[in-house]
Amino acid sequence: MDDKVALGVDIGGTNTVYGLIDAKGAIYQQGEIPTNSTQPVDHLVDRLYKSINEYLVKNSSMEMIGIGIGAPNANHKTGMIDSPPNLDWESFDIRAAFEDYFNQKTFVTNDANAAALGEKSYGIAKDMDDFVEITLGTGLGSGVFSGGALVYGYSGFAGEVGHMSIDPNGRKCKCGKRGCLESYVSATGVKNTILEFLDDDPQDLLLNQLNCGNINGAIIDSEYDKGNKTARKIYQYTGQKLGTGLAQVAAILSPEAFIFYGGFSNAGTRLLNYAKISMEEQLLDCQKNTIRLLPSGLPQGKAGILGAASLVWEY
Amino acid sequence: MDDKVALGVDIGGTNTVYGLIDAKGAIYQQGEIPTNSTQPVDHLVDRLYKSINEYLVKNSSMEMIGIGIGAPNANHKTGMIDSPPNLDWESFDIRAAFEDYFNQKTFVTNDANAAALGEKSYGIAKDMDDFVEITLGTGLGSGVFSGGALVYGYSGFAGEVGHMSIDPNGRKCKCGKRGCLESYVSATGVKNTILEFLDDDPQDLLLNQLNCGNINGAIIDSEYDKGNKTARKIYQYTGQKLGTGLAQVAAILSPEAFIFYGGFSNAGTRLLNYAKISMEEQLLDCQKNTIRLLPSGLPQGKAGILGAASLVWEY
Repeated sequence: MDDKVALGVDIGGTNTVYGLIDAKGAIYQQGEIPTNSTQPVDHLVDRLYKSINEYLVKNSSMEMIGIGIGAPNANHKTGMIDSPPNLDWESFDIRAAFEDYFNQKTFVTNDANAAALGEKSYGIAKDMDDFVEITLGTGLGSGVFSGGALVYGYSGFAGEVGHMSIDPNGRKCKCGKRGCLESYVSATGVKNTILEFLDDDPQDLLLNQLNCGNINGAIIDSEYDKGNKTARKIYQYTGQKLGTGLAQVAAILSPEAFIFYGGFSNAGTRLLNYAKISMEEQLLDCQKNTIRLLPSGLPQGKAGILGAASLVWEY
Repeated sequence: MDDKVALGVDIGGTNTVYGLIDAKGAIYQQGEIPTNSTQPVDHLVDRLYKSINEYLVKNSSMEMIGIGIGAPNANHKTGMIDSPPNLDWESFDIRAAFEDYFNQKTFVTNDANAAALGEKSYGIAKDMDDFVEITLGTGLGSGVFSGGALVYGYSGFAGEVGHMSIDPNGRKCKCGKRGCLESYVSATGVKNTILEFLDDDPQDLLLNQLNCGNINGAIIDSEYDKGNKTARKIYQYTGQKLGTGLAQVAAILSPEAFIFYGGFSNAGTRLLNYAKISMEEQLLDCQKNTIRLLPSGLPQGKAGILGAASLVWEY
């Protein structure tokens, strides 16, 4: 055990996960509390502070040296969370809130960048300088590494692969644009696809089952494995769109790998094999067969706190 | 005058431009010789060597410390030129050819990256860490800077913005893909547009004039300035497509600026104003009004040798 630890915090719409993490990525006192964004931010910070402080008093050999935070729409450069989706807070300075309360140097990045940082520090991208981490959940998030460094861009809002358009005449996305990759490849995107498929085939059993509640990837996976044609059609369609998006990103970045994390990425090769075929068809000749599609090497749910903590270690 | 100079070489389909360049970007003995790619590469290297050597003998206080080369399809990582378009050479090791002949450390990159390097070292991107240099000529080349470093990617073939698709059902590109940005935004792309416009309006005077030879940007510019509607339609259409492509790149990289270089970029604001409107419409809210479209700050024809030489200075 290392004496020095960083606090990694992953703020989500429902729950906030946190952990004290040493430089090697060992996690101590991992916990999860309701985010409760109907209350002011200070409530969350206060609850976290009490929980962490209690632990540190009991473990007096452990020294906390900083805080890393991953959150939706969080901006590394400004320390702000800007109009976060799924949170009741307006734009606010999350970095200042934590620094004031904890009196610790605090670093902030968005949740998808945190996952990419976690992959680089402790996952399968350890030895990669150029890769894109794609987080598939309700939406499609991404964190981009180029030349060994996370790409923030001038505004701090780089890495919005989910809102890159793959078709100017495509689906209307909730962001207002058309054909965003996220509107096809995410739980929300697959829901859209199911509704479209239902128009053509209103009696299909699986489509009706999936349309009844939130999209359940496990049901599609299990039906796919049994040879269900509709399940195959869903992944084929989604994989084809994903491959189109990956080829566009590849034209610009030529990464070593696209790495997939998040609940919806459990589909694994069921989805990625179709994506790979589609991507290869749309790559320039000089880029063909140079890019791998890989599942994440991090435990589900831990990339966020690992990556957030790595901001402290990197510093 | 600095005593130490680097040889910058820009190998083109017809001519090869070269110059001895000091660390501040001052160019000595700039020259241009036919590339002559029907002869083996050694002929070109030999002619360059004789010219440079003669000058260095006369100017004995000047010391050459390395060579930088920009060329189509040149790969920084391997030192190879791979199946170059507009050159009769097959794939070959241009780095080894120069190192053997000159006995000087040699660096290689593609021509669009060289222009971006030149812009960063001596042009308007001096103080920018995140920008994309777009070279508009027969094709559309690009060099990407992120976090202050040129993006090569894993394969060395990053920065192929011209072959990023902006429409999966769009024009067939010579690379085999559909909807590549280059097939709309480049001299070749505008030629395609003129042919399409002629289908709708076979009697249009300007379209017929432009269709007679190679695309002459100066004619379109001059007609645009006189208020010609067809000229405006050409730039409006081309700018709209350019804006779509820039918005896609911006979603991933969020650059401070797109900088335009090359013969076809002389259109300037005639084209870029339309591109700006189109890009802003397609940006995420958080990226709106953060990205500038700028003409290059480098003298036409010199970005290649300046950028190639800067590889030596960077090293």
